[in-house]
Amino acid sequence: MGDNTVKEPVITLSAGPVAAYPQVLLGMARPVHYDYDAYFQGFYEQVARKTAKALRVQDPALILHCEPAVGLEAAAASLIGPDDVVLNLASGVYGKGFGYWAARYHKEMVEIEVPFNESIDPGSVAEAFHKRPDIKVVSVVHHDTPSGTINPVEEIGEIVRRHDALLLVDAVSSFGGMDIHPEDCKADVFVTGPGKCLGGAPGLTIMAVNERAWRHIAANPKAPTASVLSLGDWKSAWKREEAFPFTPSVAEVNGLDAVMDQYFAEGPARVWRRHALTAAACRAGVKAMGLELWAAREEIASPTTTAIRVPAGLSDEDILAAAREAYGVVFSAGRGDTKGKLLRIGHMGPVAEPIYAVVAVTALGGALRRLGRACDVGTAVEAAMGVLAAARP
Amino acid sequence: MGDNTVKEPVITLSAGPVAAYPQVLLGMARPVHYDYDAYFQGFYEQVARKTAKALRVQDPALILHCEPAVGLEAAAASLIGPDDVVLNLASGVYGKGFGYWAARYHKEMVEIEVPFNESIDPGSVAEAFHKRPDIKVVSVVHHDTPSGTINPVEEIGEIVRRHDALLLVDAVSSFGGMDIHPEDCKADVFVTGPGKCLGGAPGLTIMAVNERAWRHIAANPKAPTASVLSLGDWKSAWKREEAFPFTPSVAEVNGLDAVMDQYFAEGPARVWRRHALTAAACRAGVKAMGLELWAAREEIASPTTTAIRVPAGLSDEDILAAAREAYGVVFSAGRGDTKGKLLRIGHMGPVAEPIYAVVAVTALGGALRRLGRACDVGTAVEAAMGVLAAARP
Amino acid sequence: MGDNTVKEPVITLSAGPVAAYPQVLLGMARPVHYDYDAYFQGFYEQVARKTAKALRVQDPALILHCEPAVGLEAAAASLIGPDDVVLNLASGVYGKGFGYWAARYHKEMVEIEVPFNESIDPGSVAEAFHKRPDIKVVSVVHHDTPSGTINPVEEIGEIVRRHDALLLVDAVSSFGGMDIHPEDCKADVFVTGPGKCLGGAPGLTIMAVNERAWRHIAANPKAPTASVLSLGDWKSAWKREEAFPFTPSVAEVNGLDAVMDQYFAEGPARVWRRHALTAAACRAGVKAMGLELWAAREEIASPTTTAIRVPAGLSDEDILAAAREAYGVVFSAGRGDTKGKLLRIGHMGPVAEPIYAVVAVTALGGALRRLGRACDVGTAVEAAMGVLAAARP
Amino acid sequence: MGDNTVKEPVITLSAGPVAAYPQVLLGMARPVHYDYDAYFQGFYEQVARKTAKALRVQDPALILHCEPAVGLEAAAASLIGPDDVVLNLASGVYGKGFGYWAARYHKEMVEIEVPFNESIDPGSVAEAFHKRPDIKVVSVVHHDTPSGTINPVEEIGEIVRRHDALLLVDAVSSFGGMDIHPEDCKADVFVTGPGKCLGGAPGLTIMAVNERAWRHIAANPKAPTASVLSLGDWKSAWKREEAFPFTPSVAEVNGLDAVMDQYFAEGPARVWRRHALTAAACRAGVKAMGLELWAAREEIASPTTTAIRVPAGLSDEDILAAAREAYGVVFSAGRGDTKGKLLRIGHMGPVAEPIYAVVAVTALGGALRRLGRACDVGTAVEAAMGVLAAARP
Repeated sequence: MGDNTVKEPVITLSAGPVAAYPQVLLGMARPVHYDYDAYFQGFYEQVARKTAKALRVQDPALILHCEPAVGLEAAAASLIGPDDVVLNLASGVYGKGFGYWAARYHKEMVEIEVPFNESIDPGSVAEAFHKRPDIKVVSVVHHDTPSGTINPVEEIGEIVRRHDALLLVDAVSSFGGMDIHPEDCKADVFVTGPGKCLGGAPGLTIMAVNERAWRHIAANPKAPTASVLSLGDWKSAWKREEAFPFTPSVAEVNGLDAVMDQYFAEGPARVWRRHALTAAACRAGVKAMGLELWAAREEIASPTTTAIRVPAGLSDEDILAAAREAYGVVFSAGRGDTKGKLLRIGHMGPVAEPIYAVVAVTALGGALRRLGRACDVGTAVEAAMGVLAAARP
Repeated sequence: MGDNTVKEPVITLSAGPVAAYPQVLLGMARPVHYDYDAYFQGFYEQVARKTAKALRVQDPALILHCEPAVGLEAAAASLIGPDDVVLNLASGVYGKGFGYWAARYHKEMVEIEVPFNESIDPGSVAEAFHKRPDIKVVSVVHHDTPSGTINPVEEIGEIVRRHDALLLVDAVSSFGGMDIHPEDCKADVFVTGPGKCLGGAPGLTIMAVNERAWRHIAANPKAPTASVLSLGDWKSAWKREEAFPFTPSVAEVNGLDAVMDQYFAEGPARVWRRHALTAAACRAGVKAMGLELWAAREEIASPTTTAIRVPAGLSDEDILAAAREAYGVVFSAGRGDTKGKLLRIGHMGPVAEPIYAVVAVTALGGALRRLGRACDVGTAVEAAMGVLAAARP
Repeated sequence: MGDNTVKEPVITLSAGPVAAYPQVLLGMARPVHYDYDAYFQGFYEQVARKTAKALRVQDPALILHCEPAVGLEAAAASLIGPDDVVLNLASGVYGKGFGYWAARYHKEMVEIEVPFNESIDPGSVAEAFHKRPDIKVVSVVHHDTPSGTINPVEEIGEIVRRHDALLLVDAVSSFGGMDIHPEDCKADVFVTGPGKCLGGAPGLTIMAVNERAWRHIAANPKAPTASVLSLGDWKSAWKREEAFPFTPSVAEVNGLDAVMDQYFAEGPARVWRRHALTAAACRAGVKAMGLELWAAREEIASPTTTAIRVPAGLSDEDILAAAREAYGVVFSAGRGDTKGKLLRIGHMGPVAEPIYAVVAVTALGGALRRLGRACDVGTAVEAAMGVLAAARP
Repeated sequence: MGDNTVKEPVITLSAGPVAAYPQVLLGMARPVHYDYDAYFQGFYEQVARKTAKALRVQDPALILHCEPAVGLEAAAASLIGPDDVVLNLASGVYGKGFGYWAARYHKEMVEIEVPFNESIDPGSVAEAFHKRPDIKVVSVVHHDTPSGTINPVEEIGEIVRRHDALLLVDAVSSFGGMDIHPEDCKADVFVTGPGKCLGGAPGLTIMAVNERAWRHIAANPKAPTASVLSLGDWKSAWKREEAFPFTPSVAEVNGLDAVMDQYFAEGPARVWRRHALTAAACRAGVKAMGLELWAAREEIASPTTTAIRVPAGLSDEDILAAAREAYGVVFSAGRGDTKGKLLRIGHMGPVAEPIYAVVAVTALGGALRRLGRACDVGTAVEAAMGVLAAARP
């Protein structure tokens, strides 16, 4: 690795990309097959079907060969047409950001924005439809990762469907780590990826697009084709007799196959449970240390990421650096508007295991102490352990 | 792998994706690091610098996190502005195809098109500039893979630079397999990827963009930003202090690192030599069998892919299926306009070794025979061996 | 790799170790688990049971954590006691060699030795028992790899059992590549390993030991314990509640699991068929080139290795070096008494595919030509192809 | 993995085998090369030389293709002859156990045995030589893993050399985790392996045998040959022109190469430091929790394993099971005479990082609490953190 003098971290508790499962990494090292060969075509169909099973939808999943941020840009480009009024729900940096992509394509945007430590009130969505019954597309982020907060997408989905609009849900950092699926929230376009809670590598988008959404895309005169921004190009790519629009990322598909095998072998409910338990233990520890959760209310704190307000007088970068230097533990900072205001501890994939809640509070407390703050780490560890003891089946 | 009843091929001699080198596959299985962590940032810079060294340019290579077809679309979107007159050079399906992307962004297009078994005459380029001195951007494919033919990009590059226009070279399936680099052909934008001759997985674009091109992009009022189609977003992404515009494909970057290590460890000149020798042996075998090369002249036949005219009365699909069934050997068909007209034998990465020329002619000859054609495979193998014997140092 | 200036071979067609299947190599990279942990103990039992299923025996396979040469030494040490008369059947270097180990432990040895290009006549075994009804242990090599010849172990097994003696069969380089199992040949001790026809790495011994043999071992006052030479130490090691006598080679066990998965996924009959077909094509090619098979009769030539007499006036080392230098193809020389007299082309694991018969005859013929011998490779390739065409289902 | 219903552990803190480094696991998945091929022969020499460099000896390391318990058995068999008086130093189960192997070969044994929580007093060794100047071979375990205690091998080595006897040092679970090398302790035979502190897989023995020892072996009329128990068979196996006595474990050698690359890339002194620091933090935490270290004095507690007395009234198995169930953390029990009396926390290879001291005390304390013992984990974590804070450079 030449002159890279930075030591590898010991444990990464980031909000993603996260350490992948060992078997998923090995999955990525499987042979690279030729995309026009029958073997790969059969394999690709299987992976798309497996992924659909995880998403609990019938049609093979739509796989895009870029990470989910690109998938979201493509979804905006394909779904939102020049006649569409969009309701963008912004409870965080990612929700707000989606509005910028939507604005390239829409006729008009209505936006509900709440403070970035809050979540969207479904009542406000109902109200928006009341005022603007011409809303056609609603966009929402389930877990706005830069805030570590969850939006009530099931309730929102009910309202959107009732008004016959289309719902796009960004579930990139929640799917696979908690009990959410496209049909649970009546999402017409549901976007996720293997690189967060599923414990895979980043590099693909996984999408579920239902017939309502495909019809809307088909009717969109500006929907891209022959482009990375096109959803339609890939709609039937899983069919063995169809050519791929461009070369799929074969190794990432190999990895996705392994991701799905891991997910089903362990069992989704067990996976979700350890994400939730790790987060609960972590929050207890953090609070016991006298730190403040970023989320306005603990009910909206994500089971896949714990966001913590940066203590007054300290900088996020200093804390992250101290935790890394003293313990080899890596956390995430905020992003955009939340940058500098919060720290994030990821509970995703293989590190969504309760013992890592202890690792997190120790490294965080140790970092604060190193920066001169008194900090009762022992009490924090005890609090985290208390959550685990109480959860014992 | 569930119900995928198709047997894996034994040997893939496709025009890409190709079997990756073992050490590159293992490279892709290295730990997934967090993109905001200092370790990954240092590593990414190193990979960008290593790749630049392979490209023989000074600045760290531009890495885009999608396969090169997307990279080319992004290059068109970023480089070609609404005031630009584009000269598109089309000697094959990919050259022709680039024109469609260019047409989304340009002011006007001039096109030189030659039969798809021919190459571009540099004289015609000079003539085009003579007629249209306002040509600002020239696009050319070095190796038009669906034809297996090479264009004289060095001569073309001289002419373009003399007229102060910008040259975009698609070297996706030539770089790493023959002696071509951005400055050899005065390319302002040079596009390639790890998934062809370099023996890596598909999933990244490698680009060299020089200062002239960056200035043009900066001056393009329509150049995308905050988009997968933006080159500019990623210009400085290699800098440790810069955030990535979106999550890089960490595993693919790990793989690219291994690709570069392989390339330098073996030595580029040795790599090129075995590509050329394999192709020469293959062509000799093919001709000895009484088949016809697709390329109008052998001088323009690619050292990384051998394209062969489909014998009259046979279908490409039948031949490919027979070679696969009888020998487990996979070849490529044509694409677009060349589909049905030719077969392609790839000589890329780990299979760019002379023994695979024998594998190729045997499997091809065996397939033809299975379809009822008399075919002197023995003579073909002898012809291939003759080339190897003559090449003995 | 520092100063290792030797280029890696392109294709290895050795008599083993052979290139392992890709999925088996990845199997070896799975996490190393602690041998006293319940997870590993359960896994180990599963692997022992899977292996037994491949061997078609009931009890979990005996796994020894050294390569099969050590396994054979241990079998001799454990099975052969100071009161045992041993009948050693020597049709090759390995058969002869086993006698040296046996001689350390036995009371007396009777030996049937035939020329090393011949196989044991079952009639001679019956005759030996007639003369020496006190023979207690018979040892035979199924495929004497240094000769590439097969012994009729089924017939021999009948005779041995009829005389109530114990039979030890070395099936190291035949099991997994042809239809042979312990009970097919009434072997009381059947020794093989993952590193030959099964396409795994060398480093383990797989053994089936039946109750008759265990009783004999139990009654052997000199049978080793607390030793690498002890079979008994490992008899119950597969039981979850038993400690391992010493640390098992965890990575090799991981690999064996993947070996077995590959074997069953493809289907043993298909695996054997491609071994046999590849060998048949290879022999046809070799003979068409005017070379002489080592085996006295083609019926005893192994389907997993083709041994060829070194042409008069040439040296084995020169031929091997020429094939490697010109084509990157590696073959095996003889060993011991057969060293210098023959060359061996392995057909084992992933290279037991018909196309490699063509690779073999081309590289061999090319090597001979390089050394100044006229050699009709074209005809040889045609002959190999003829076998494949005739075998077409 | 079929019906293995046991969940994989989350974190393994065993006394070995330990989780291997990721790059070492990938090293084991490299291609399996043919052991008679020049490439592998060159590679093997390099690995033997790299290993020698780590051992700080001149001659290429002796590599045996079985785990170190077998290596030790072979060392006893080869080194100890029928005329040798052996002084066996037993401060633990492994030291005592070596005596049983020695007893198979020696003329007579003198033994110094101390309680298994103590270490050998060099004075007693001097005294033994005083009484029995005919002692020819001395055997000692550096880190008697079942006790987690260290013997003063440097001092012992001085005495042994002064009396012109030969010293065999078992450094299996200390080398690579602390500053010990053959010449530091004047070991004539120094035995270790890649599967403990070096963070590799078990399956090989690494040995340094000096000229004095080779002469003694050469003079031993009973030294095995043509046997897995022979050291001499492998003496020159690293030479490119020498055949291997039996097939080396190719994948394990590939792994050893990666082990050595990791060791040198990080730097031995850094590796030792993190082992020592992790152990010190762990001991502090354990003591703060009111538990008792097994070692009679902390100075003899190993930096690579912390052994803790099982609290009165509890069983080791219950504690291990509780830690595994509640936290997914795996520890080791004792072995032989120490079984049931102590628990062991390994600090070896990738988990020899201070944060794992916190993991250990938390999981251990949590387990005790689950079994009804009051246990101040918070204080224990604080104590461990205190050690780390004090060690800050």
